[in-house]
Order: sequence, then C-alpha cells, then structure tokens
Amino acid sequence: MSHPAPGRPLSRTDRSRHRRLREQGSPDRDELDAILAAGFVCHLGVSVDGSLLVVPTVYGADDTTLYFHGSAASRSLLAAPASSVCVTVTHVDGLVLARSVFEHGVNYRSAMVFGTPRPVTDPDEKWAGLRCLTEQSAPGQWDYARQPTRKELAATSLLALSLDEASVKIRTGAPDDGDTPDAELGLWAGVLPLQTRWGTLEADPALPPGIQAPPHLIERQDTAQGLRPSP
Amino acid sequence: MSHPAPGRPLSRTDRSRHRRLREQGSPDRDELDAILAAGFVCHLGVSVDGSLLVVPTVYGADDTTLYFHGSAASRSLLAAPASSVCVTVTHVDGLVLARSVFEHGVNYRSAMVFGTPRPVTDPDEKWAGLRCLTEQSAPGQWDYARQPTRKELAATSLLALSLDEASVKIRTGAPDDGDTPDAELGLWAGVLPLQTRWGTLEADPALPPGIQAPPHLIERQDTAQGLRPSP
Repeated sequence: MSHPAPGRPLSRTDRSRHRRLREQGSPDRDELDAILAAGFVCHLGVSVDGSLLVVPTVYGADDTTLYFHGSAASRSLLAAPASSVCVTVTHVDGLVLARSVFEHGVNYRSAMVFGTPRPVTDPDEKWAGLRCLTEQSAPGQWDYARQPTRKELAATSLLALSLDEASVKIRTGAPDDGDTPDAELGLWAGVLPLQTRWGTLEADPALPPGIQAPPHLIERQDTAQGLRPSP
Repeated sequence: MSHPAPGRPLSRTDRSRHRRLREQGSPDRDELDAILAAGFVCHLGVSVDGSLLVVPTVYGADDTTLYFHGSAASRSLLAAPASSVCVTVTHVDGLVLARSVFEHGVNYRSAMVFGTPRPVTDPDEKWAGLRCLTEQSAPGQWDYARQPTRKELAATSLLALSLDEASVKIRTGAPDDGDTPDAELGLWAGVLPLQTRWGTLEADPALPPGIQAPPHLIERQDTAQGLRPSP
C-alpha cells in the first residue's frame, strides 16, 4: 500500500505471502488469526450478474471459518452462493513519511481470504455462527441482549467461508530511504501512527431513565479497538 | 452492515442509494465527496485471470476522479486495464447496540465507485494525480518531501477512475428497536462510537539528531482522522 510505486504493490519491507495458510500454529497462520481477531468489518468482493461489488460487512471468525451475512452482497449472491469470493480485512496503523514522495507509504496489516462460501443451514451451526459474528464486534452482547427467536434465525441467511486459502500482508516500521542519498537532504522522516479507539457510550434517546449500561460496555469505553501484533 | 439481517444488507434506517451520482452539488454527490475526502485507503475489487481480488490501496480523489496505483492490484490489471472495477471507501463510526441481537449493527459511511480505470499517461496529469494521491493521506508532504524525478514518474503506473458512477450508504443514529416490544425488556441500548485518531510522530531511527518535524506534521498529531458529516 505504498504511494508512487513502480510496478510493485507494496514497498520493500512488506512481507507478502500469497500462499495457502492451512497450518494452524504456523507463523503465517498466527498472523492471519491476529488480523481477523482485531477487526469486525471486512470488505467482501463478489461478482453478481457479471458486475464486481466490494461490500463492507460485519464478520465473525473462529479457528477455521469466517462467517458473514448472506444478505451482505445481495440476493443475487444467495441465488448463486457457489461463486468464489474474496474477503479482505485491513487495519491501517500509520503513515510512512519518507524523505521522497516516492517512498511514502502506509503501515498496515491486511488479510485476504479466498473461497466459495457455504450457506449455513444446520440450526446449531447457524446459532454458533451468529453468536461468533455478534461477539466479534460486540463481545458480551450475545448473552446480554435478546437472542434470536426461531423465526428470526430462520429468516437470517448466514454464509461460512473456510480460512484454508488466505494471504497476509503486513508493513511495519520506518521509511525505507534512510540509507539512500535522500537521507542527506536534511528532511524529517518517520511514522505518524493511526489509532482506532472506542469513544463514550451514547444512550438511545428512546431509553427510559434509570437503565444503566452493562459492565462489558462500560469497560470498553475509551479503549483501543483491535490490537497491533507484538513487535 | 447490520448483524443478523434477513434478506436485507442494511438495517431499516440505512439510506441506500444505488444510482449514478453524476450531478455535482446534489446532496448525494456531496455525501460521496465527503466520504472520499475523509479517507485515504480504499478497497479495490478487480478480477485478475478469473480470480476476484479485493486489495487495500491508497487513493486520491478530486472533483471528478479517483486516482490509485496501477500496481495496486497486480501486473495483470496493468496488462488488461480495460476491466471494470469497484472501489469502496468505508468509515466505521460506531456499534449499534440494540435490545435484540437481531437489530445490532454498525454506524458507517461507505462509498462505492464503479467503472473502468484509465491509465494516466499524460505527464502533467500524472504529476497532478500523484500529487492528489499523496496529499490525500499526507497533506503538506508533496511540497515538503523530495518530489518524483522524471525516472520515478515514468516508472510509476497511475490509474484514473471517473466518479460518475457511484453509490453511497450511510447509517447513523440509535438502534431501531426502541419502539418494539423489546423496549420493555429493560435492557440498555445505544451506540458505542468508534474514532480514528492520529498519534504521536515516531522519528525514523536513521534520522540524524537535530532534524525537527515540519509544522504540518506536528499539528496533525493527536487529531481526529477524517470527519463525520455534519448531522
């Protein structure tokens, strides 16, 4: 995700891995899991009636599977669930401010998952998948809020995508031109970090007085969203 | 981007507009411009050799055009630039915490731009496009850092995508179940905002002592990244 970059999508220090990440416990697989665990919104790429769509949608991920709503793309996807998709989760960690414009870039962590989503029809798996999806963004809410009725569950379309085929790209650290002639220019260079944080709870105006937010929400206020991988 | 949602990609209060946003100055077009102006990373969906890819990459947008690196997707895209793409920019503004799991969702602003990117070959347009792209994420850096040489410029592949065909989706505000029987459950409901902020500058370890960061970077520290639309 570098700036002016001639024929290379990422700058030199990027660690790019376009390979199958089948093995749990491998460093690559650990990075995949960490990137998925740190987010809750993905960009789902689907081809619908010959048109390519990139749709933001919430997801949940467990050890083997990424879950998302079948309705996320469109009814067309539901009509043809056997098409291949790409799901990308990206965390932007900062701007890389180099001596030259050419070497400017972004520090980030990104995971792509490829495959053909499978409609989840088994009621127990659907329950577990929806719980996973809800807890990914709002941990504690599945048990706190009213859980789905049988009717709601039946009306919900859930897709499961295997984590077997995925790739991870990560860039961290300082600019790459510290050892080039540009270092003699006397220009400042470094990184401006970008941080995503939860703010302060805003009660629904329709809420009757006297109802307090539960501890799991209170404690989440003013904390960092997601986690950077340990250096 | 709601949670368990039966056959609908967005919850009831979403304002979904899948239409051409040709007219500048229209409310829709103003929203598109605001969403693009508030970000600098997009998700580019391309079909390469029959495989669908969703790639995060930096972009720049002016009144008519979105610019991104031709290398962002792959050399394959450069070999066949005449394919249609979808570029999506998403800002996640908060979690919508409803009384029922079924009504949980996300407050967000998202823009999709559709079309066939055009390789930028004119040197003046390429210069202006790269400046636009750099200034989108790092305003002030084009003039501060070393600008591209003729060789760097020639080595950089830049694509231009018209903003003529686009759609905008926005969700704001409280949960939707404040006037349903679930409101009698006595559960807290509301929104947990999510905010993206710039942190504190981190100097390149290779930087000689005595070089101060320029004012446009100093002033950006500890400020909000992007802007929410005025309510």
